[in-house]
Amino acid sequence: MADHTVKAFDADIGQLRGMISQMGGLAEDAIGQAMQALARPDPELAARVRADDKAIDAIEAEVERLAVRIIALRAPMAVDLREVVAALKIAAVVERIGDYAKNIAKRVPSIDGEHRIEPISLLPAMARMASDMVRHALDAFAARDAEAAVRVVESDAALDDFYDSIFRTLVTYMVENPRTISQVAHLLFVAKNLERIGDHATNVAEMVYFAATGTQMADRDRGGPDKETR
Amino acid sequence: MADHTVKAFDADIGQLRGMISQMGGLAEDAIGQAMQALARPDPELAARVRADDKAIDAIEAEVERLAVRIIALRAPMAVDLREVVAALKIAAVVERIGDYAKNIAKRVPSIDGEHRIEPISLLPAMARMASDMVRHALDAFAARDAEAAVRVVESDAALDDFYDSIFRTLVTYMVENPRTISQVAHLLFVAKNLERIGDHATNVAEMVYFAATGTQMADRDRGGPDKETR
Repeated sequence: MADHTVKAFDADIGQLRGMISQMGGLAEDAIGQAMQALARPDPELAARVRADDKAIDAIEAEVERLAVRIIALRAPMAVDLREVVAALKIAAVVERIGDYAKNIAKRVPSIDGEHRIEPISLLPAMARMASDMVRHALDAFAARDAEAAVRVVESDAALDDFYDSIFRTLVTYMVENPRTISQVAHLLFVAKNLERIGDHATNVAEMVYFAATGTQMADRDRGGPDKETR
Repeated sequence: MADHTVKAFDADIGQLRGMISQMGGLAEDAIGQAMQALARPDPELAARVRADDKAIDAIEAEVERLAVRIIALRAPMAVDLREVVAALKIAAVVERIGDYAKNIAKRVPSIDGEHRIEPISLLPAMARMASDMVRHALDAFAARDAEAAVRVVESDAALDDFYDSIFRTLVTYMVENPRTISQVAHLLFVAKNLERIGDHATNVAEMVYFAATGTQMADRDRGGPDKETR
């Protein structure tokens, strides 16, 4: 590419990275706020999380537009092209992560604030772990850091173990407190959504790895679907 | 676009659709063969499923290359551009569906053929349901059929109910036959992978809907993450 084209490409790719990073920040916020809304419970905050999801969708659409424009105008090659295509695919996954956060928020109106269910206290730590995976996967993208992407994939096993442990605790609690079953069922759903967020962060990390290296991450026991027995 | 450009574009998009359809067929085969390998059990067939996954990955890479070429050379607009971008994103999801089938195949060597676990007989029906969702989602893409895409999303609720029912059956079986626990744990994992395949087929259907209509599917209780309480 000519020098001015390289500069224009760098500016474009910088903007693309910025939008992905912004989407990731919004998705993280959505997870955190949905969990806050659940813990209090705060149906108004939950409604705001649901409304804010539209902003994530809007940025995804912008990422698509810019990625298409870069491909059409700049004709990037090799690692640059892989990065643009990865941005487009990653934006689709982050959009989906936002949906899971929204789905957690949708449960909040069903949570009974008067009769607090003790195991609810386990969920925020799991949510932080899932949210950290999202941030680390997107940081890896921003830094083109394949090693960091591998670490994200590896960390999914810990999230799955956390899910298994919460699942057992919640089921035991249901058995011992049968009147709470419908409430605890909502918490099981929340835990499952958090685990899926981790699965999607893993997916992003695999895309980052490919964008950075041009090869698929080794065929190993992937953290996500492989480590789970539930 | 000039007339010859339109024709060239039509040829390109036809090729893109063909590749997506081929990927979908391979992913369906992988699901079906992984389940056959599990039911017999047949470790050699399972090994073949794992090896064949590379073909799905290869077509995904081809889809990316062709989509990029179409965007760069043909500068498609509106619905045509949405279709090309959707193909690129759908290919990434189908690649992931192939991974779930591969992960089912990886369980086969751990299945004990001598002491057959009765509830294994439930899984093929669930697999067919998941596999049908994949096919219907990709048929909807080929036909630009938004209504068919909506039906796929709706059908995910039935798959989730199936998963819940199998989950309960398997857990009851474990309680009554404690010596089978490690074997049944593998089947729980398989059921979970099938349910995730349905979730990803739902995701594809949402992309098809957007490609066909230019609007997001209405904010409803999505089949995937919303209907689940486990």
